[in-house]
Amino acid sequence: MKGNKELQEKLQAALSTYQFKSAPGNLYEPIRYILSLGAKRMRPQLLLMGCDLFGGDINMALKPALGIEFFHNFTLMHDDIMDNAPLRRANETVHQKWNTNIAILSGDAMYTQSFRLMMEVDQSILKDVLDIFCRTALEVCEGQQLDMDFETTEHVTIDDYLQMIGLKTAVLLAASLEIGARIAGANDADARHLYDFGKNMGIAFQLQDDYLDVYGDSDKFGKQVGGDIISNKKTFLLLKAIELAEEQVRKDLKTILFKERNPVIKVNKVKDIYNRMGVQELSARKIEDFYLEGMKHLQAISVPAEQKKNLLEFAGMLLQREH
Amino acid sequence: MKGNKELQEKLQAALSTYQFKSAPGNLYEPIRYILSLGAKRMRPQLLLMGCDLFGGDINMALKPALGIEFFHNFTLMHDDIMDNAPLRRANETVHQKWNTNIAILSGDAMYTQSFRLMMEVDQSILKDVLDIFCRTALEVCEGQQLDMDFETTEHVTIDDYLQMIGLKTAVLLAASLEIGARIAGANDADARHLYDFGKNMGIAFQLQDDYLDVYGDSDKFGKQVGGDIISNKKTFLLLKAIELAEEQVRKDLKTILFKERNPVIKVNKVKDIYNRMGVQELSARKIEDFYLEGMKHLQAISVPAEQKKNLLEFAGMLLQREH
Repeated sequence: MKGNKELQEKLQAALSTYQFKSAPGNLYEPIRYILSLGAKRMRPQLLLMGCDLFGGDINMALKPALGIEFFHNFTLMHDDIMDNAPLRRANETVHQKWNTNIAILSGDAMYTQSFRLMMEVDQSILKDVLDIFCRTALEVCEGQQLDMDFETTEHVTIDDYLQMIGLKTAVLLAASLEIGARIAGANDADARHLYDFGKNMGIAFQLQDDYLDVYGDSDKFGKQVGGDIISNKKTFLLLKAIELAEEQVRKDLKTILFKERNPVIKVNKVKDIYNRMGVQELSARKIEDFYLEGMKHLQAISVPAEQKKNLLEFAGMLLQREH
Repeated sequence: MKGNKELQEKLQAALSTYQFKSAPGNLYEPIRYILSLGAKRMRPQLLLMGCDLFGGDINMALKPALGIEFFHNFTLMHDDIMDNAPLRRANETVHQKWNTNIAILSGDAMYTQSFRLMMEVDQSILKDVLDIFCRTALEVCEGQQLDMDFETTEHVTIDDYLQMIGLKTAVLLAASLEIGARIAGANDADARHLYDFGKNMGIAFQLQDDYLDVYGDSDKFGKQVGGDIISNKKTFLLLKAIELAEEQVRKDLKTILFKERNPVIKVNKVKDIYNRMGVQELSARKIEDFYLEGMKHLQAISVPAEQKKNLLEFAGMLLQREH
């Protein structure tokens, strides 16, 4: 079993030997730039861990791992345009540093490169791997579309929300693991369990993100506490509160969301309602539900428990993280 | 050998049985919309013709042919954003009818679907076909980037221009033919010759487009004559005129391009310079050069001349077209 440090070093080495094309500069420079912004490389690491879990050769998984990282960064490049985001990892976004047209086209090129990297697997599994990759890529688009749709949808249910974060965030983590498993030659049942482990963890991870926005330690979390509340983001917490609230509380909540201009007062008032309705506890329990469901799938995989230690630790780290 | 009508009918039938997903509507509806805008389906037809040339089974090539059409329309959806174009085939563009975010994301989804369609080939040629497709997709992005770069580049040479139209337009026509050939099991040399035939024809086709903008019959061409001149587009004609002009004529040309506000006068004045420098004749000759170079490659393909008749006619039609 390979340690996380070793996997990250291998990833870094693979990335640093990747032959970036240089011309036209306006097409390729933004790709190099977004990949240089220092990231956790969580998805490619999961791909390598999925391969390692079944005793596969990590070196055979490095290019597809980069492919996943390229794909993820392509989605960030396009999402940042759609979200009109000025910053990404504390640096200017591509559309801000260059312009929107360049961010669209560089993203398209980066997506193409992610395919090419993903194709660097044995012929015998090429179709399987690309099937997973294409299905996932389409789901990620669907998740992003639902997320945008929700901004202007009055009634979003908890189920709608879970579906959206499943598509937007969780399936890519799950697919990273499964592709790693396929490269190692895992059987269908094991590969599927690993996928389901990843999907449940991914949903738990996103719910945790919502939770920490309100209940995290702002110093450790590194973001303004209550940012989601200030921007009226339809998170699990807000949707749960709306679902549980009596008519009057629901009205109060709406008034606060749309009328309260002072952000500190707004956050405190909404938190107050959350606390009265037990939303914090319900949210923590939901995170645990997905965590435990994921664990069941990890347990079901037919390799010795010892080999699962890395993934177990990784999941624990994801969900106990305070930043 | 299959007639063009038969090929187009098969394409239309394949498209009409394609299972479009419906939700989220904002993601998938624009895809259905842009494909419904009535097009010549030139690229998928070329793919089928490439397959037919080598006696391949057209039915095995239908899904990759749709893949090429999906890919082409994805590039149109994104190009229209970049060009700020309100109309596409006399209908609203996607970003105009919906919005830019939807056009970006639907394009991404459509690109993914084009991959899936392209993957519907025999396992034994999957990697070859996808290698051609990915290489071409990246080249199309490069061509579009160069085209955008040229708008703000002072010195664009004829070679720069030919490289740009080669990438932006010709390689996709060439790749369509080559993928068809690969599906039919053509050997490397023949597939390569067919590619080169397509690439030369593609460049000739684009040069013809530039030519007809100035020297075409406006009624038959269906566009305003001189549109490229009015918008100062760096076409073969303009670049050739700049290349050949003496210092004073070059200055005159610049003054007309940047100062003349009356479009009719502008077109006439520029045409006048073109005529004085023999640009029309030089352009016609250049088109013929590429046409003849393409023909050499068609001749070199190791199938009976009789089977090449369709492609020969198609090339002739492309280059004698007046609309």
